[in-house]
Order: sequence, then structure tokens, then C-alpha cells
Amino acid sequence: MKDYTEIKGGVTAAKGFLAGGLHCGLKQDGEPDLAIIYSERPASIAGVFSKNRVRSATVPLSQKVAERGKARAIVANSGNANSVTGEQGERDAKKMAEMTAESLGIASGEVAVASTGTIGVQMPMDIIAAGISRLASALDVDGGDDAARAIMTTDTCVKSAAVRVPLSRGEITVGGMTKGSGMICPNMATMLAFITTDAEVESAILQRALAGAVETSFNSITVDGDCSTNDMVLVMANSAAGAAPIGESSEDYDIFYAALECVCHKLAEMIVRDGEGATTLVRIHVLGAVAKSDAHKVGKEIANSLLVKTAIFGNDANWGRIIMAVGNAGVEIGPDAIDIKLGDIIMLRAGTPMEFDEARATEILSQKEVDITVDLHMGTESATVLTCDLSYDYVKINASYRT
Amino acid sequence: MKDYTEIKGGVTAAKGFLAGGLHCGLKQDGEPDLAIIYSERPASIAGVFSKNRVRSATVPLSQKVAERGKARAIVANSGNANSVTGEQGERDAKKMAEMTAESLGIASGEVAVASTGTIGVQMPMDIIAAGISRLASALDVDGGDDAARAIMTTDTCVKSAAVRVPLSRGEITVGGMTKGSGMICPNMATMLAFITTDAEVESAILQRALAGAVETSFNSITVDGDCSTNDMVLVMANSAAGAAPIGESSEDYDIFYAALECVCHKLAEMIVRDGEGATTLVRIHVLGAVAKSDAHKVGKEIANSLLVKTAIFGNDANWGRIIMAVGNAGVEIGPDAIDIKLGDIIMLRAGTPMEFDEARATEILSQKEVDITVDLHMGTESATVLTCDLSYDYVKINASYRT
Repeated sequence: MKDYTEIKGGVTAAKGFLAGGLHCGLKQDGEPDLAIIYSERPASIAGVFSKNRVRSATVPLSQKVAERGKARAIVANSGNANSVTGEQGERDAKKMAEMTAESLGIASGEVAVASTGTIGVQMPMDIIAAGISRLASALDVDGGDDAARAIMTTDTCVKSAAVRVPLSRGEITVGGMTKGSGMICPNMATMLAFITTDAEVESAILQRALAGAVETSFNSITVDGDCSTNDMVLVMANSAAGAAPIGESSEDYDIFYAALECVCHKLAEMIVRDGEGATTLVRIHVLGAVAKSDAHKVGKEIANSLLVKTAIFGNDANWGRIIMAVGNAGVEIGPDAIDIKLGDIIMLRAGTPMEFDEARATEILSQKEVDITVDLHMGTESATVLTCDLSYDYVKINASYRT
Repeated sequence: MKDYTEIKGGVTAAKGFLAGGLHCGLKQDGEPDLAIIYSERPASIAGVFSKNRVRSATVPLSQKVAERGKARAIVANSGNANSVTGEQGERDAKKMAEMTAESLGIASGEVAVASTGTIGVQMPMDIIAAGISRLASALDVDGGDDAARAIMTTDTCVKSAAVRVPLSRGEITVGGMTKGSGMICPNMATMLAFITTDAEVESAILQRALAGAVETSFNSITVDGDCSTNDMVLVMANSAAGAAPIGESSEDYDIFYAALECVCHKLAEMIVRDGEGATTLVRIHVLGAVAKSDAHKVGKEIANSLLVKTAIFGNDANWGRIIMAVGNAGVEIGPDAIDIKLGDIIMLRAGTPMEFDEARATEILSQKEVDITVDLHMGTESATVLTCDLSYDYVKINASYRT
């Protein structure tokens, strides 16, 4: 994956986007809880959505907007997930789009909606209405960070990233923001990401690029293995850069894709780093798989194993738990072919345990970032999955009473 | 499921079985680490085995014995899993069967072998050889508990159960023992269960009965969602009771099956109660599914959700996490049809959140046993899955260094 130097600005780094965030009253603590991202000109939109069968009313609404492929704005709130709220919830999500459209002078079909927060509580629409009206007139070209702050729930830091890349003609910017660190507060739901670009990309191509970039970024991270009812990644492209249009199979597509993937990766990694109770970022590299999906499955199985995650928290070079997880992934493997490496230490070679320096292994595990490499030696495909360790604080955070 | 009054004796409760356990030297702490179960007469045998693709050398060996359907003895050790030990491990497992056979004057093909303990360490065969020879001459009709103690790793209690039931002619006894409480000590692997009966059952019928009983018992529990490399359930039937033979589709089969299922359930429940760091036994009842497998999937998804398990540890009546897990199970559901109950409190009815007494909910959750009922209202099938909560002690136990 290509890495580019980050620039400031998040979702307002790209030309022609305004954004903002404020406290409308959903959160008890006075923190910002309402965000709008607005494109000054018509934009393409694409999205990927939660696969949970129980979904927030916002998910099908925004999915329809993405299917039509044209949008001007995204309105998002924290503090209430608008999930398991029945038909009233559907009406409220629609109403949020309508109110945003009216305030911005655009069509309601051009507004995507996202919510994150408590499940099973109806939205206080009077508060939302007043907030949208106030926020719509306060959007700013420097409002990216304010918007990013307003979608946080119990995230401990603002999460945004942007990069700028040259095309065959002109240069484009891709910027984004995200939130999530597990389903941290009871009933909190969970992962949102919004990305903007001033590239000229029609929605079908945008959708294809997003689907690919999400697969290796947001779909390759796990904090606790639970997929929320509200997960959503949206990208808007408004062509404000005046750069070369992104054709379907072109060098410019490859550059755009690399920039989009880079931003998705940076945002996804921020989520894992801010994972509930996390003390270590763990990169699990699976090599030598027959299919990419196999490599991904093995990586996810290791990343979600409580036994692996607690061992890493305890700085315990316990490769037995890793190979147990490999064997559980439901993927055809040859146990006698497998290599396992912790950092640069070989623990298992061709299925045979190796002598290794325990002190050195403990030292590697006590770093903030740890690399685990599993080579299946079955084929040539690979995948990397990011996770964090499982600490006392994870239990503490998640065992606490709803407040 | 039928429940029968428990009797004493474990694997030696049934007629014609001898057993014993002793310390041969695999464990550093002097605790018993070698067990033999012996049938005085030819017995049918059936088994179910770990689906992990990385398997102990003992698993294929015992699988072959079960496929042939005839056995006289089971030899099992704790302290070493004989897993990821390569061809040497295969030779050692075979050698254990041969040594046991020789000591008991039976054929080596009639001996099943099981191991539990550290992964990736070769078996010290001299110690094992001396232990088998000594133990074979010390087997006893009251040795069930000694055998059960010798397969414990970091289990905190001996786990055995037996019941006696009348058939159309005569009465039969089904008794068993098990071990497991998670992969508690680093690299410990994991769940073993051995069941004996003096019923007359041919191996094909025995296999069918065991597969069914395991599905609703051992396969319906989860401590941490990780399946070990050594899991094995074996049942031997030696016809010593002189009772009516168990025909394929007969009332006697139903009685035998109920007794076998009852013993499997009792043993499985003991494992969950002794789960790592567990403070609460949680019974998850899933009703109204289209297929039994769907009900099972939904139950397992809830039971393995870290968010559900930590909420229960925190006595938090957090139904939002339960419905999130339901939606993630990969089963067709109608979110608007779902009911969720905690004990007798209705939290969600037809997808609509209900007002409930939080103090009463907390009281229910603070009990040693908690019932959660999810009705999907899609069909008539149901399943019950047992799990435990996730506490600080789970992390503590699993984060500690290998010793």
C-alpha cells in the first residue's frame, strides 16, 4: 500500500467542501453532537454499510442516496443511534435529511444521514431541528475538525486524515474523518467514516474504489469482533479540483485509488489505536494463502481470539494460541507447512517449534506496535489485519453500568 | 431435555469398568497427570473430535479406534498436549496405546489416547512408560474420581457425573468425566470428556447417539469461543449390565439417549461453571427459529460477544448488545419481530423497547445463574447455549506469563 504525507483539514481539506459541528443537546455533557459536511457543488457519492441484520434507520436511507449516486451533504449526530426505533425512527431519519436540505437549499434526496449513540431511544427531533438550522448557517472551509469532534462518542481523540496527490493533469485531495473505538459506552453504535475528495469521479467508479479500499482498511480491523448496527463509510467526490477526470481503468484511477486507500488506512488505524482499553496495536500479516479471502479469514480469527489478545496484553510470546486460531479459521491449511514470526523472531518453522530468546520476545511485545507474521505456504495471497490487545480496562469500560 | 438424579462414581459407575489416576511426572506440582479407563469386557466405542485443523497426534489415533468401533481402554494424560509435535508426536501417541495394551493384556488397536496440556513440547516417554505400567496394575472399580482428577489442568474442581435408568429389561448406567475451563494456562489444550455405559449398544448406534447428545451439550457451551487442538469426547459401552440391547429405533434407544444426553449436559455445564474467571452461568435460550442450526448460531453469537459477556459481569441489563449480536449471527431475521427477555423481564417486544425496572434487572443479573431468552418469531425451532461472563480475572488468568 502506498503511503502519502498527511495534510491538515480532514473532510474540508479537499476543495469545495464546508463542514461544521456543534452541541445541539443530545449529549448530557455539553460535548458536540451534530455534524454537517456540505459540498458547494454537485458531488458523486458512494458508500458501504453495516452487514448487521439489525440496522439503524439511517442505514437504508443513506444506502438509497448512495445508490442514486448524487449527494450534496451528510448530516450526522452522536448521542443517539436511531436504531431499534421502528417506523418512528425511519420518519426521523427522513426528517433529518429534509431539514438539512431545507437549511442548505438543496434537495432532500441529496442528503445522507448517519447516527451513532444509544440504541432503542427515539430521537428528540425538536432539539435536532434547532441544531441543524443553526449549524447549516455556520459551516466553514476550516470546519473539518469540528465536524470530526461532533461524531465522537467515547472516542478519546479526534480522528481525521487527508492527503494530496498529483494526477496526469492537476492535483486532487482526499480527506476523511471517522469515529469508533469498540461499542464503548453501553449501547453505543459504532463506526462511522466520511471521506471527501475534489476529484472528478462518477459514482460507479467511486463505489468500486471505495469497496476496494474499505476491504483492506475498515474491514481489516477489529477491536472486539462485534459489528454494529450503524456502521457506514461514505465518500463524496465534487470535482472542485478541476483536475483530470478519473477514468475507469487509467493511471489516474490507480493514483486516486492509492490516495483513497491511504486515507482509509490512516483512519482505520486510528480506530484500533483508540480501541477500548488498548495498550498495543497489533498488525497480523498472513502470507502464502491460496486466496486473499483465506488470508483475511485467518487474520481475523487470530485478531479476534481472546486468548491471543490477552497473551499480547501480558507480553507473552504464546505462539500455541496463534496456531490454534489459525486452525480454527475454517481455511484449508497444512499444519506442517506453517511459519509463525513475532517481529523478526521465528517461533515456528514448517510446523516445528523453534528455540527463541524469551527476553527478546517479551521486549518486542512490550512495544506500542507489534507485528505477527503467519506464512501458510499454501499459495501466494496475503492480507494484513489490525487489532489491539485485550486489557483489564476493556472489561472495566464494558462492564460499567449504563449512565 | 430429561433430567435424572445423579449417582456417584463417574466413569466407574457403570458395571464392568475400572479406572485410576496417578502422578507420573508430567506436572511439576506433583498433581495427578495420568489416567486409564478400562473395560473388563469388549466394548463398543464412539467419539467426536476437535474440528480445529491443527490437531494433537492423539486425535487421529483415537478417531481411528472410534471408526473401528471396538475398544477396551482409554489412556489420557494432562501436562502435555502432544500437539504441534510432528511425526515424533504421532509415534509417541501410538506408543502410549501400545504400552497401555501390553500392561492390560489387550490389543493396541483397542486403546484410545488423549492428551491435554502444553502445545509444542515432545512427550517425555520414559516417564509415561513407567506411569502406565504402574497405573495399569492399580485400576479399581472405585477409581472414577481418581481418573477424573488426573486429566485436570487448571480446572478448579473434579468434573464427573453418572445416572442410572431402567430399560424395557434391566437397568443401565451412564457415567462420565470431563475437564476444561478455557485454555486457561497458556498453551493448555483443552476439553476432554470420557463416558462409559454398561448398556449393550453397537458402535454405529452409539456414534449416532453421541453425535446428537454432544450437539446439545458440549457443542452448546462456550467460554471464550476458541476451539482447542485436542478436544475429544469418547463413549464406551460394554453391555455388562445384561439389560436389553439398544435397538436403532426403540423406546430403549430413547431412554438410553436421554440418559447419555443428561450426563453430557451435566458435564458440559460443569465446564462453563468452572470457566476462566467466571462469576455467572448464563443460559441463552433462542426460540422461534426456522432451523435448529439458526437458533444455535444466534445463541453462539450472543454467547461469544465480548460486549454481552462484559455487560453481564457488570450486572448491566444491556439488551442493545444482545440484539446487535442477534443481527450479526448471519441468520435471516425480522428485527421487528424479536422479543428479548432477561429472566422474566421483557426488555424488547416485537422489536420495540419496553420500560422495565432497572433495579429488578440488576438483581436478576447479580444471581449466580442468569437466563436470557430471545424469540425470533420466525419458526418453531429452538436451542440453548451456555456461557459465562467475562471478568477481570479472565484477563488476569490469560495475560499471565507461561510458567
